Amino acid sequence: MSGRRWTSRDVAALAGVSVATVSYVMNGRMSDRIPAATREKVLSAARQLDYSPNRSAQSLRRQKTEQICLVVDSIGVPTVDQLARDLYAKAEKVGYGLITMVAGSAERAAKTAALLHQRVADAAVIAPATVPRFREETLVELARGGLPMVAMSNTVRPIGFDVVRAPERDACVDAMSHLLASGRSRVAFLGHHEEVTDAEARAGSERLGAYTAALDQHGVAVDDELIVDGADDRVAGYQAVARLLQRPDRPDAIFAASGRSAISAIWAVRDAGLTVPDDVAVVGCGNLPEAEITSPTLSTVGPPTTEDFTDVAELLFQRVLADERPPEREITNPWVFVPRGSA
Amino acid sequence: MSGRRWTSRDVAALAGVSVATVSYVMNGRMSDRIPAATREKVLSAARQLDYSPNRSAQSLRRQKTEQICLVVDSIGVPTVDQLARDLYAKAEKVGYGLITMVAGSAERAAKTAALLHQRVADAAVIAPATVPRFREETLVELARGGLPMVAMSNTVRPIGFDVVRAPERDACVDAMSHLLASGRSRVAFLGHHEEVTDAEARAGSERLGAYTAALDQHGVAVDDELIVDGADDRVAGYQAVARLLQRPDRPDAIFAASGRSAISAIWAVRDAGLTVPDDVAVVGCGNLPEAEITSPTLSTVGPPTTEDFTDVAELLFQRVLADERPPEREITNPWVFVPRGSA
Repeated sequence: MSGRRWTSRDVAALAGVSVATVSYVMNGRMSDRIPAATREKVLSAARQLDYSPNRSAQSLRRQKTEQICLVVDSIGVPTVDQLARDLYAKAEKVGYGLITMVAGSAERAAKTAALLHQRVADAAVIAPATVPRFREETLVELARGGLPMVAMSNTVRPIGFDVVRAPERDACVDAMSHLLASGRSRVAFLGHHEEVTDAEARAGSERLGAYTAALDQHGVAVDDELIVDGADDRVAGYQAVARLLQRPDRPDAIFAASGRSAISAIWAVRDAGLTVPDDVAVVGCGNLPEAEITSPTLSTVGPPTTEDFTDVAELLFQRVLADERPPEREITNPWVFVPRGSA
Repeated sequence: MSGRRWTSRDVAALAGVSVATVSYVMNGRMSDRIPAATREKVLSAARQLDYSPNRSAQSLRRQKTEQICLVVDSIGVPTVDQLARDLYAKAEKVGYGLITMVAGSAERAAKTAALLHQRVADAAVIAPATVPRFREETLVELARGGLPMVAMSNTVRPIGFDVVRAPERDACVDAMSHLLASGRSRVAFLGHHEEVTDAEARAGSERLGAYTAALDQHGVAVDDELIVDGADDRVAGYQAVARLLQRPDRPDAIFAASGRSAISAIWAVRDAGLTVPDDVAVVGCGNLPEAEITSPTLSTVGPPTTEDFTDVAELLFQRVLADERPPEREITNPWVFVPRGSA
């Protein structure tokens, strides 16, 4: 029997179930309708035969799409655009295409997962900030079904998929300490809409957590009036900062939770007749290429060099192109504070 | 027989072909393998029975995905992001999701079309600048196969799908005439990479065509040194303008083929110690919300109000949700010149 490749038919015979049931279990579909005992029988038979749906049933079941899927939380985030470009470039090299699915809510995430189960693409990357839209079991089920996947998250555990982490907290504390140590006492936090309005998102925000922790450490009381919404887009960021600067007790520093809103903050300070960093210091999050063409250049917390996600693309395609599924891997790329001209 | 809904079985019987052949023809698949005569027999039988694959075979053939697909040419274009947001918002309201596919080359476009044939989504919008990646027959085939579709293009004919046009040329000539009539004589053109380097794209660019035509009209010779690459992103735009401004015969105006590169141009002029618009006037393309928060505000050619694609979303969903396929429709939203502070 050496050299024989076992099929789902063999697994079905050994497990005493139908071929369809093997297919459902191995592909993680109809998981709510298959009893746990049946699933276990199938998985055990598959293990005995060293049967991998990656190599047989799955590729027979339907043609490969030769597409990878990037699942995003929202549209028009520069960091995610860079991720998409890096994935597209790598995909092109090996003859794959890129599709993006928007999972802006838990309901949308569930539908996205269903489409991934149906193999709308051969592999998936879950973009930063998007993993919380999914139930953790959903990601595990997708991976168990044979979908090569990389999740970008600081909290999710790698179970059958790879995880790329970018811990933010220490760098944010460093930036805040830099501001406070240089004599700033009214530091505003320019956050994303959910991050400042939704209790759960607020509790989960490393940036906001670092902001309040650093204020605490320096004995500065948190002023809720200085925590404002506006990091999601350039115009909202500009307007939020313009409003803050009209206050009699205006901030002397702005910690912006995105790079593009930090750039808008620089404009708003200048348009108010004030100077960056003398009157108002500005720090952004992320490390956009643009941070080096602003005037002054933008101090930021983020990856040490401007954003580059080729490592994520490599990880995904190692998994896509592997003969055997690799073990789960974790990459950790901690953020750092990159001081430039604006703070 | 009143009230009876004809099925593909009936069409097959009338045409004297198999049900599979009816399905292939009505869904536009395997079009290279089905003789033209057979196709005609099927289409004629379908017309006789008023049989629509939209209502029967197609929805039986596979579950609806409840996804619409936006096909884009490149990643991170603010106008296209706004289009995606408007499509996503409308889709959400009717329980649909949004996927995006990147068709950055003719090869990728062909693969994208194949996936649309396989119904990776229930409907598609082809984003501006993306239609030229496709063969026109490919779009016609997709529509004939029953895919509701809106193409955003100034040139493609609507054959089974809707077309939304945004003619640019007159507005660009107006902007150029405004610059030239106010005494500017060295107007640089900051174009997209393909638009200034690829002969075919160059010939097809309404913006570049208007630029050279307006120079001609005003008796100003075209200086190829003033036609530069840099409209595709903010950093490239900044660097291209910074280089132009170092020339002894620096430009006194910049006509930028994108909004974001026009904003970078304003920064570059200021960082060179010059003033906008006194030393260098700047005009952008598109009408980004950001154009109103720059200092000075950005004069632009584009839609009369900041970009809004709810009409495209409405058109698509009218087609998606229709009981009967509507006739082809065309919407024309001409660009205008919106003078603001920068020119």
